[in-house]
Amino acid sequence: MSKINKAACIGGGVIGGAWAARFALAGIDVNIFDPHPEAERIIGEVMANAERAYGMLTMAPLPPKGKLTFVKGIEEAVQGADWIQESVPERLELKRGVLTQIDAAADPKALIGSSTSGLMPTDLQRDMKHPERLFVAHPYNPVYLLPLAELVGGQKTDRAVLEDAKAKLAPIGMKGVIINKEIEAFVGDRLLEAVWREGLWLIKDDICDTETLDDVIRYSFGMRWAQMGMFETYRIAGGEAGMRHFIAQFGPCLSWPWTKLTDVVDLTDELVDKIANQSDAQSGARGIRELERIRDQNLVGIMHALKAGDDGRGWGAGKLLAEFEEHLWANAKKPEADLDALKPLRVLDTKVSAAWVDYNGHMTEHRYLQVFGDTSDGVLRLIGVDMDYVRDGHSYYTVETHIRHLGEAKLGDALYTTCQILSSDEKRLQFFSTIYNAETNEPVATAEQMMLHVDSKAGKAVPAPGKVLDKVAALTKAHAGLPVPEGAGRHVGQKR
Amino acid sequence: MSKINKAACIGGGVIGGAWAARFALAGIDVNIFDPHPEAERIIGEVMANAERAYGMLTMAPLPPKGKLTFVKGIEEAVQGADWIQESVPERLELKRGVLTQIDAAADPKALIGSSTSGLMPTDLQRDMKHPERLFVAHPYNPVYLLPLAELVGGQKTDRAVLEDAKAKLAPIGMKGVIINKEIEAFVGDRLLEAVWREGLWLIKDDICDTETLDDVIRYSFGMRWAQMGMFETYRIAGGEAGMRHFIAQFGPCLSWPWTKLTDVVDLTDELVDKIANQSDAQSGARGIRELERIRDQNLVGIMHALKAGDDGRGWGAGKLLAEFEEHLWANAKKPEADLDALKPLRVLDTKVSAAWVDYNGHMTEHRYLQVFGDTSDGVLRLIGVDMDYVRDGHSYYTVETHIRHLGEAKLGDALYTTCQILSSDEKRLQFFSTIYNAETNEPVATAEQMMLHVDSKAGKAVPAPGKVLDKVAALTKAHAGLPVPEGAGRHVGQKR
Repeated sequence: MSKINKAACIGGGVIGGAWAARFALAGIDVNIFDPHPEAERIIGEVMANAERAYGMLTMAPLPPKGKLTFVKGIEEAVQGADWIQESVPERLELKRGVLTQIDAAADPKALIGSSTSGLMPTDLQRDMKHPERLFVAHPYNPVYLLPLAELVGGQKTDRAVLEDAKAKLAPIGMKGVIINKEIEAFVGDRLLEAVWREGLWLIKDDICDTETLDDVIRYSFGMRWAQMGMFETYRIAGGEAGMRHFIAQFGPCLSWPWTKLTDVVDLTDELVDKIANQSDAQSGARGIRELERIRDQNLVGIMHALKAGDDGRGWGAGKLLAEFEEHLWANAKKPEADLDALKPLRVLDTKVSAAWVDYNGHMTEHRYLQVFGDTSDGVLRLIGVDMDYVRDGHSYYTVETHIRHLGEAKLGDALYTTCQILSSDEKRLQFFSTIYNAETNEPVATAEQMMLHVDSKAGKAVPAPGKVLDKVAALTKAHAGLPVPEGAGRHVGQKR
Repeated sequence: MSKINKAACIGGGVIGGAWAARFALAGIDVNIFDPHPEAERIIGEVMANAERAYGMLTMAPLPPKGKLTFVKGIEEAVQGADWIQESVPERLELKRGVLTQIDAAADPKALIGSSTSGLMPTDLQRDMKHPERLFVAHPYNPVYLLPLAELVGGQKTDRAVLEDAKAKLAPIGMKGVIINKEIEAFVGDRLLEAVWREGLWLIKDDICDTETLDDVIRYSFGMRWAQMGMFETYRIAGGEAGMRHFIAQFGPCLSWPWTKLTDVVDLTDELVDKIANQSDAQSGARGIRELERIRDQNLVGIMHALKAGDDGRGWGAGKLLAEFEEHLWANAKKPEADLDALKPLRVLDTKVSAAWVDYNGHMTEHRYLQVFGDTSDGVLRLIGVDMDYVRDGHSYYTVETHIRHLGEAKLGDALYTTCQILSSDEKRLQFFSTIYNAETNEPVATAEQMMLHVDSKAGKAVPAPGKVLDKVAALTKAHAGLPVPEGAGRHVGQKR
């Protein structure tokens, strides 16, 4: 798979910083140049947001974080980089100058993406010596979570470069979408600008206030668009007769469109005041940091929901997340158990996410079993029972579980888990797992579990193959000397 | 709380039928008049979709379904109705005639909502004798899931009627949003039309195809809009300086907008063909029924995700869902145990939803515990430990659970659960619950659980109060004669 080996970010800020976070969290070293005196602080904040979001987003093993290096100039930044992302302010002359500098100093084969949300790549590449590798890679805020990058080439851009860029974005969890022809603002901001202009008129004419307008979006088509966009949604509205019927039914409205407000709104002081005041009334009770946190949690939740879509096969951004996770697993170092440690395996580190708690902020009962299940999965990977193994038709199924709750896990608590192998034979595996609070090292819950090796098509227990049993035996032997945990072998209600 | 006692739907079809489903699922009887020869079949299909969606959407107790009565005319339909929803085709003369007939036959105090997506209420109410109770209640497809109804009054509409309509929509899970002034297409379809027009130009000019355009939406701002709409999203983009800063930064673009395509696209046969063909290429592999099912599952998943938003307090449509569920619980008949049945309590009926399964279609391990937890909650409500009780500071916490897997639950399987009380004292409650496949009546899993009555603020076990203990004692006594289940009192790995 085509991949980025080293990246450079020219221009930090909210967009450039989030690109840097995307790269670093995918294990790619990044050089950053931004003359802003507070660049390091700003990027640090974006990075913290990104890491928090990724902690909620996925349990898949992120690679060791790439190194962020702040450098003093463009020339130094682009050394050794094979993807250079330009995110400087939105002025043509400035961008053109920066890109020409990048072009002169970079490896001639390095890809150069611009984060511009409106300028034409043909204008940007005018003065470059190697303009064929310049393209727009226009992302969406928050760049560390939203997967889209619009890929747009100019007259001198090589089409193969766009395909290469798209392939290189996949392993960092992004969806590169190639736009056929360059136009100002490309596709996404065209659509957004249409809504923005229409929205300004609605506010100016007092048809509604900003909160009502937002409510109209988020309680209705916003939820449709998160999954299907516009045309596929309307295809459904057209019924069995499909798109042609939809256009026949609703097309005629266009000949005298409801929207007669095609003029541009004059942004008078009065209108700016009105919008700002309405926005304060709507959202002012919460700070921007709080709104960001809520937004990111919601985005993670929506992506998780979409990952379960289409009967678990994944849909839209959720399917993309599943593919990203599969890539992470495939590239993770094969875990190896430390057989000489003379203590239970340390398996998992996680955090109690917002989706896991009840309205009191306590972790919901079944989420404990989710963490224990993830722990068992971690141990199974140690003995070679991974995604490929399961796909080939065999697996270990849990047949019995005994959970004891010893403490409480609350929203945001850092947790880790351990697992001790109590017994095994050719079909059976007996685990004793413990969830600990990572701050206090106190146990929060324990689970004793019996797993059975099964042929999943035949639906019956069968002996595990030798290559698995060897690892099972080694682990069982390594743990044979450990004391039996106090909670093992107990039934519900048994006196201590 | 203001509520609808009886509804009438004039005009069935996809919109009118879904209104009828909303009403009926909220326990409201509905008269339906639609002269279409296939009205009953169409509404039956919409109803089936709605019931499937509600089955996934909430575990809260829906009231007994309201009765759907198909009648022969408008006059018969509106008898006794206090909410009449008109959803006939979008032609002013037709609607005006129908509304005048409704007005003449209905109780003068009955509210009359029109589902029109574009016509002005002032035009609709022109010939009515009681025009003050006519308003637009414009919903969004699928009406049984998307909560928004835009409420728009005409010149003769009483503002108090709009407030009353908003209040009456809340108990059926809908979000009524009052629009200040009438304009054609109101707020939502104005915004949608702006995007539609812009989108048509992008397709016509070959900037992208329909799939690319949909991808641009759903991998980026679609997910923002599902939760926050436009202004709140941009407020965040403005950073600490807020909305004023955002407009200052991005407003100037408007003075020469990227969108110069304010003309109306000519819908030539060629363009219609192009769109239809691209849409076929994008979505043609799946039928409309399949796309509907995927859309509804995704909508449910997104609402569930938003219900967990803002640290479990709920956000947007998810907060609305939580409020709807609270209302359902508050209005549910207090459950009473049949103490003379001489068998375990039958507690819960549910279905294995898409979010519960792995990619093999099997119910994920921790979802079994979720079903057992919901079963315990059901039994606790029987002894008076409900949401109010928990809010007042006491609850039963699970301290120990022993699960045995006896079979497999798969996507779409109908399940029911039973619970037998094994023992109890003033602090403790010991349950034995079983999940059955509702088709085969075979047990799928069992759970033995020990619960402890706690003071949740003090975080320690305390005796339950007398009113709870009386019910606990009665249940325990009623179950004392039942045989001890075969799986009770066992530890993990115990031989049979």
